[in-house]
Amino acid sequence: MSVVSDPVSVTTGPITGSSKVYRGLPDGARVPFRRVHLTTGDHLDLYDTSGPYTDDTATIDLAAGLPARPGVVRDRGTQLQRARNGEITAEMAFIAEREGLPAELVRDEVARGRAVIPANHHHPESEPMIIGKAFAVKVNANIGNSAVTSSVAEEVDKMVWATRWGADTIMDLSTGRDIHLTREWILRNSPVPVGTVPIYQALEKVDGDPTRLTWEMYRDTVIEQCEQGVDYMTVHAGVLLRYIPLTVGRVTGIVSRGGSIMAAWMLAHHTESFLYTHFAELCEILARYDVTFSLGDGLRPGSIADANDEAQFAELRTLGELTAIAKAHGVQVMIEGPGHVPMQKIVENVRLEEELCDEAPFYTLGPLTTDIAPAYDHITSAIGAAIIAQAGTAMLCYVTPKEHLGLPDRSDVKTGVIAYKIAAHAADLAKAHPRAQERDDALSTARFEFRWHDQFALSLDPDTAREFHDETLPAAPAKTAHFCSMCGPKFCSMRISHDVRDAYEKGMADKSQEFADHGNRIYLPLTT
Amino acid sequence: MSVVSDPVSVTTGPITGSSKVYRGLPDGARVPFRRVHLTTGDHLDLYDTSGPYTDDTATIDLAAGLPARPGVVRDRGTQLQRARNGEITAEMAFIAEREGLPAELVRDEVARGRAVIPANHHHPESEPMIIGKAFAVKVNANIGNSAVTSSVAEEVDKMVWATRWGADTIMDLSTGRDIHLTREWILRNSPVPVGTVPIYQALEKVDGDPTRLTWEMYRDTVIEQCEQGVDYMTVHAGVLLRYIPLTVGRVTGIVSRGGSIMAAWMLAHHTESFLYTHFAELCEILARYDVTFSLGDGLRPGSIADANDEAQFAELRTLGELTAIAKAHGVQVMIEGPGHVPMQKIVENVRLEEELCDEAPFYTLGPLTTDIAPAYDHITSAIGAAIIAQAGTAMLCYVTPKEHLGLPDRSDVKTGVIAYKIAAHAADLAKAHPRAQERDDALSTARFEFRWHDQFALSLDPDTAREFHDETLPAAPAKTAHFCSMCGPKFCSMRISHDVRDAYEKGMADKSQEFADHGNRIYLPLTT
Repeated sequence: MSVVSDPVSVTTGPITGSSKVYRGLPDGARVPFRRVHLTTGDHLDLYDTSGPYTDDTATIDLAAGLPARPGVVRDRGTQLQRARNGEITAEMAFIAEREGLPAELVRDEVARGRAVIPANHHHPESEPMIIGKAFAVKVNANIGNSAVTSSVAEEVDKMVWATRWGADTIMDLSTGRDIHLTREWILRNSPVPVGTVPIYQALEKVDGDPTRLTWEMYRDTVIEQCEQGVDYMTVHAGVLLRYIPLTVGRVTGIVSRGGSIMAAWMLAHHTESFLYTHFAELCEILARYDVTFSLGDGLRPGSIADANDEAQFAELRTLGELTAIAKAHGVQVMIEGPGHVPMQKIVENVRLEEELCDEAPFYTLGPLTTDIAPAYDHITSAIGAAIIAQAGTAMLCYVTPKEHLGLPDRSDVKTGVIAYKIAAHAADLAKAHPRAQERDDALSTARFEFRWHDQFALSLDPDTAREFHDETLPAAPAKTAHFCSMCGPKFCSMRISHDVRDAYEKGMADKSQEFADHGNRIYLPLTT
Repeated sequence: MSVVSDPVSVTTGPITGSSKVYRGLPDGARVPFRRVHLTTGDHLDLYDTSGPYTDDTATIDLAAGLPARPGVVRDRGTQLQRARNGEITAEMAFIAEREGLPAELVRDEVARGRAVIPANHHHPESEPMIIGKAFAVKVNANIGNSAVTSSVAEEVDKMVWATRWGADTIMDLSTGRDIHLTREWILRNSPVPVGTVPIYQALEKVDGDPTRLTWEMYRDTVIEQCEQGVDYMTVHAGVLLRYIPLTVGRVTGIVSRGGSIMAAWMLAHHTESFLYTHFAELCEILARYDVTFSLGDGLRPGSIADANDEAQFAELRTLGELTAIAKAHGVQVMIEGPGHVPMQKIVENVRLEEELCDEAPFYTLGPLTTDIAPAYDHITSAIGAAIIAQAGTAMLCYVTPKEHLGLPDRSDVKTGVIAYKIAAHAADLAKAHPRAQERDDALSTARFEFRWHDQFALSLDPDTAREFHDETLPAAPAKTAHFCSMCGPKFCSMRISHDVRDAYEKGMADKSQEFADHGNRIYLPLTT
């Protein structure tokens, strides 16, 4: 890998209260879990996205990149094609173990096009994962520099940091200096699939003038990125010339970068989008590497006022056509969704996407349920994300507190990931994902039993939970105390609740003794 | 007012980009609004909860308290009784102006018991507000010290701080030292209704031993608080002796302080709750002051596992019976709701509450949609809060990041209020509250036109939005720049979108000219 001038360093070591464990598969693959060790002697194994970075027995050499996983097969087609042929690939077996679901289900959902496994043959460093509504809801974290800020080292650090807290995929949306080099460092060190938007790099090549873009240079950029190992690519091929007038009356016009770039190109050349006219050729390229399409919603609404409008749904219909073409080429496809949508209009997006795009996995940005809270859009959108995931969205693209205001830093990345892990998990619970509630039950049991360390260890962010507890009760005995500063000892409902339970059970024992003393006679109740 | 040893100081002055304005009513009342001044010369008036503290012409004297509002009538019954008599009270007229809705609607909803106006005759300092599903969704902020932490000065500061950011009511849940004094300072300085849970103070009087509670001392505590001016009181009268066994098998038992206190009392005395057996007497007391009941959910679920269980719904049925009794006494009633509830079980809570409690306003704590994120429960619960408010909940009790971990400080109070203003506003949009979307549209228009200062001023938290923007682009020109650090100048979709719009409009002008050049002939389209 080319050297970078800044020193690159990342956070390693286990998450507090946990250790990394692996379950071995017959082909030599090792499926990772985060094992939470409880003070009761029990443990709980959780889905783990953090790669070798949380394994304190692993050697991390960022300049060399992560080791390749076993079982990667090149030149044998895509996961979709192989699933259709009835094959359970190494990736599918890995995913089945990871999700705790049958390998046949994994294969069937992929074959049906209802799930995708973004796994470029050239990215063997990543641990296989699946995006589909039959599986745990996934979270993507966007990183990447812009012309104004950030460096390669920072972006690698953000990637490791995001996956540490649970990001299932990363999108490198770099638009500034060193796009190729940044991506190379991210890919070689990423334990999760990496997505990109190739038009960004293409635009850099023409110094930011969208009218100078050509199909040929775009195609070459896509091939360059396929060769590097990008797992999925956002392609805004559904923005057609005739849809542009539909955006003119909008409050916020076109808010997708890719959508606005293509709209500018089409208007300048008075011709249809080259992404649309060359779509079949693009399919052939992606199929060779098994790169997954993420068909971009270039006309997504950027405000509550523009939600579910004609421009948005016209594009969605075109994405449906393109889905059929991609699948006919054996290419895996997911569909990107909004954006800004008020709550009462969210579910319609999922129903329409499923209907028009043959149930291809839906991958949405939020949606934000109101426009009025810049600096808190991780919250405005976590609300929408939870609702849309419950309705069937397979992956959620996070939104950070910096949305609309600036580029997220390391701290924003963590906040965004945690907010979205909450939304995804809330949806898993609502969809009754088979293993989702185990963790809630374990944590709530620990809470009720005043096992503070276990409560922290089982939480999405053990460090912050402990830090908040320390703020008012820092002493070690407080971590086993039967109360906290919120209510103090006298008002602790959980402590009283234990007394109530004991008193009740003692009362039952007394009654039982009384019953025995009276000769164990049974009385029929007067009412039922 | 008694003096306090610590100096009490609070935040005053307008919110950035806004000023306080009043609309006068014929009776001399002045209805407050937050006027946002836009750089276009326009302005937008927003609902304002912050009282005189944001009015830089007001004199604040915390030791003297706020001035009384005009129109307070004692000894003429409750708002419910007066509404039934067809009267539009001073409070109703104030509320109608504040909400932008007809005074007749206010009266009708109060008369029907579908809305409440918590306004103790002895709390003339507060600005009238309404809680009901036909009106904007409201947010309550809990403050109050515990035996472990906090002082009178801090609690007064938190009250002013919470209302500054939008809290519609305050609950003083103090359980530590100086309960009466803390409450006095809060009441005399609060521009919003104040709620309490009288059993907390009663328990302090018996040194924290629930078994020593008596009806007489509880009653005297209620009268003491009514005299002081408390506007609504949580009473856990629905926790009956026979429901206690239903909680024994729960993962988290009884998590309501009031519920657990009463359960302990009942088991110790083997007798029914005095709150239930003396409920009619309690109604008579509250009616004298027009204090509103907030019938507490002492058996609310404290974990996902316990949601919507028999204990919870058994208590809700009893709350329905008590609602009828309270209304028969002319006392206003709202009903408290959960707690921890997975998304798919949320709406059932609203339907059942409306059915069993004759549509009395529902007032819920969250609910939290997962248990696994201590330190982020403002987010786990904002999701549930938005959903339950969309379904008809009238007021949301905030949850702060410190929930389950410690007592919230000033910063947590703000974070909790903002998260809940988001949930409430998202629900207002979803319910099509007549004025909700104005603000989103104004903000998004400002965003699209790169009016950064207006975008900040219209947001829930102008200071933080601006601070985030400053982090990467602090210079003054950046506040009028047609891009931000998120995408940089070349990739700004909004800038490109303006170019697209201009190009499109120019294209239309060209086409129009071309059309004119060709003699303005119309062609029928070949397809429709």
